[in-house]
Amino acid sequence: MGAWKIDRLSSFSATVSAFLDGTDSPRAFLERCLAVIAAREPEVKAFVTLNADGARAAADASSERYRDGRPLSPVDGCPVGVKDVIETADMPTQMNSPLYRGWNSGRDAACVRALRKGGAIILGKTVTAELEAGRSGPTTNPFDPARTPGGSSSGSAAAVGAGMLPVALGTQGGGSTIRPASYCGVWGFKPSHGALSLAGVHIVSATCDHLGILASGLADAWRVARQISEGAHTPDCHGLPGTGHQAPPPARPRRLIRLYTKGWEEIVDAGGAARNGLGEEVEASRDEAALRAATRAAFEERIDRLRAAGVDILSRDNDADMAALEGELDNGVGGRLDIVAFEMRWPFDEYLDWHGADVGQSIHGYMQRGSRLTPTDYRRLLDLRARARRRVMEFAGRADGFVTLASTGPAPIGLAFTGSRTFLNYWSWLGFPAFSMPLLEVGGLPVGLQLMGFDRQDDRLAATAAWLAETPT
Amino acid sequence: MGAWKIDRLSSFSATVSAFLDGTDSPRAFLERCLAVIAAREPEVKAFVTLNADGARAAADASSERYRDGRPLSPVDGCPVGVKDVIETADMPTQMNSPLYRGWNSGRDAACVRALRKGGAIILGKTVTAELEAGRSGPTTNPFDPARTPGGSSSGSAAAVGAGMLPVALGTQGGGSTIRPASYCGVWGFKPSHGALSLAGVHIVSATCDHLGILASGLADAWRVARQISEGAHTPDCHGLPGTGHQAPPPARPRRLIRLYTKGWEEIVDAGGAARNGLGEEVEASRDEAALRAATRAAFEERIDRLRAAGVDILSRDNDADMAALEGELDNGVGGRLDIVAFEMRWPFDEYLDWHGADVGQSIHGYMQRGSRLTPTDYRRLLDLRARARRRVMEFAGRADGFVTLASTGPAPIGLAFTGSRTFLNYWSWLGFPAFSMPLLEVGGLPVGLQLMGFDRQDDRLAATAAWLAETPT
Repeated sequence: MGAWKIDRLSSFSATVSAFLDGTDSPRAFLERCLAVIAAREPEVKAFVTLNADGARAAADASSERYRDGRPLSPVDGCPVGVKDVIETADMPTQMNSPLYRGWNSGRDAACVRALRKGGAIILGKTVTAELEAGRSGPTTNPFDPARTPGGSSSGSAAAVGAGMLPVALGTQGGGSTIRPASYCGVWGFKPSHGALSLAGVHIVSATCDHLGILASGLADAWRVARQISEGAHTPDCHGLPGTGHQAPPPARPRRLIRLYTKGWEEIVDAGGAARNGLGEEVEASRDEAALRAATRAAFEERIDRLRAAGVDILSRDNDADMAALEGELDNGVGGRLDIVAFEMRWPFDEYLDWHGADVGQSIHGYMQRGSRLTPTDYRRLLDLRARARRRVMEFAGRADGFVTLASTGPAPIGLAFTGSRTFLNYWSWLGFPAFSMPLLEVGGLPVGLQLMGFDRQDDRLAATAAWLAETPT
Repeated sequence: MGAWKIDRLSSFSATVSAFLDGTDSPRAFLERCLAVIAAREPEVKAFVTLNADGARAAADASSERYRDGRPLSPVDGCPVGVKDVIETADMPTQMNSPLYRGWNSGRDAACVRALRKGGAIILGKTVTAELEAGRSGPTTNPFDPARTPGGSSSGSAAAVGAGMLPVALGTQGGGSTIRPASYCGVWGFKPSHGALSLAGVHIVSATCDHLGILASGLADAWRVARQISEGAHTPDCHGLPGTGHQAPPPARPRRLIRLYTKGWEEIVDAGGAARNGLGEEVEASRDEAALRAATRAAFEERIDRLRAAGVDILSRDNDADMAALEGELDNGVGGRLDIVAFEMRWPFDEYLDWHGADVGQSIHGYMQRGSRLTPTDYRRLLDLRARARRRVMEFAGRADGFVTLASTGPAPIGLAFTGSRTFLNYWSWLGFPAFSMPLLEVGGLPVGLQLMGFDRQDDRLAATAAWLAETPT
């Protein structure tokens, strides 16, 4: 275990029993969070808005409920950070954009409502990339302030990584939850598309965007996801499969599929092209090449340990079906960016028309890309994705999930570029569940192992994730 | 033709040729609208916000395009009113609620954008019931200021009915387009659910709400709907079937199904119960009983004339399948209100939590209804509706559409109650296309004939509507 795991907050889930027996309290837990925030925030810059007074009042009410033995829900007393594209009634939602400076919707997004109704403490709004899609914010990596925390859920991942909070909400349309989770050494959970409500969230792409959870551990991530699933029934979502707030118990996978994806080529070619196989800009400093090579080695070593623990590893190296599937996914995944660019035309074209000078250059680029697409192109891309989804689902009986890296290496140096999302594009595109688990350490920095699953089998995937996190050591 | 048809604005569609040959211009057309507004608005109160300066500038630009023989689209120069739950970048969107007083989203809803891009002139924001669901506004019926214009698209229907505008946008989740169209003597068009984008519209129910068009004629309604369909491709919508901005040519229906629905019982029982068969409050003044009886007679006379013109009329009176279908629809349609009440929980529960004193009593009532429903209840209601949809579609080969009244009679007296929506609930619930056509006159007041069709067969229905409007005389 690397240095980046030191001084981490206790898991909220592990603390609840102390709330119930009176040896700890939500207020005391919150004060520990606030102490870390006071110490780290000047450097990490995870928050846009912090509501310490409101949080203390909510924590006191929660503490009283535990004293009475009547917590409202399994998240009662849990401090939560909220990405600043998600509406909150008691704090503005500013989206790191001049267009929304000072804007307050006066209401909670459905996910925030579900948590608040369960007694969770909405502590603050965390830094996002501009409108989830553009310029990065000021947040730094909690393990090296010269490095990016990843994006676009930058503040949520950095806050949890710095031990300021046990859980924070993010979103993901490309790599926006899994990537910062990898760089900040925290758990990232992107449930199946449509599992959790996005009502009251400023989305970029209706068919690619997901609500994401950043957490210090699986138990907290699952508990929060379940609370949202049970409390936020909006017509856009179908809920998390299974029941119960406890994360599924560890289940040893019989077989995992190791995916290469085009992300692997980026590692191999590190220091080379400034664009990845999808034509997206990627970090390409030669100084990072060694870290990428070490990342590859750490991943291979992990795969070897899985094999040694008796897990069958399927991949394009030993299975013709997988080789065919990798090829199909590689051919299709580039369509994700086009789908996003088409779907974001509204409202982003409006932002450009009316407020163009206040919108960052990368969003202008997306809009140019989207403007070249016809509705027929778009429908074709959706059909292509539907086919890819069916193809991946054909493997649901043959394996328990897919493993690959959650990033091409540790967080790159610099704050403007939030890192490659090549490894993340695939499952964002498919809309199937994924975890980033902080199981690798490279050059003293965290790197996530990515575990990806099958549509609406989030519970099965969580059981596998739990096993992977514990085993093998 | 009744007095309510006198002094109506010319159709926009019929005027375009005069724009092209230089004998008329969009600016002159707009000035005629503004003159009617100046004369009628003090009594009708259709508008919340009027942007005459912006409209004049847009009309001048449009006039120049016609002079150059290069209009942007078939709606170039068309003045349009926009219900004040639909976002506009250049005017606030206030939703007749203190919660949104002065709120300006800084962007156009996707439908408004599509029209504006096509050169349409966004003239003003029209009065809506509170948040589309609650308290009615100050708008009066253009044919009798003591009577309601209907709701919730009150201002849009009244403005078109008063001849202030050729077209206005509304929405419908229950009866909010078809009902005010009936009372204000205009065409109402509620396309198939999901045909037109609702992005940037504050909706009540994701599965019941539709964008609606209020227009002085079918040609204008169709032209505007087509422009939105072609210009607003958001992931929530699939577009209007067919092609072309011209309304489909009149097509004589071989057979129409005459529906009774529970609305008919309201007419028969007029002056009786204050609640309809769905348990909803209905207007029940004895003074209106005679008008209701006359409405029934006018409808029956219309049906007789259709028969005389050779249209086969199927109904529960002469067809056992139809009798069974009416029974099923009557049994199921009450679920619409529960679906709406469940789906509006977010964000309306938030409004109640944070701003309850500023929310009207009827919305509080909806929320109480919704709070009694479980997610299981909700899914059961969706299943029930899916079955009803399939049942109705089984008739698509046997008939060209369904006819019934668009309201229980002319607009009732008083402004607080916007009229029964019993006749409208059915097709709002099913999500299939419907027209209200200003073809009946009762006591010197307009009443709409409602024509309802099959899912995504809006073009077929429009062809039937065109024939009905022309024939028989």
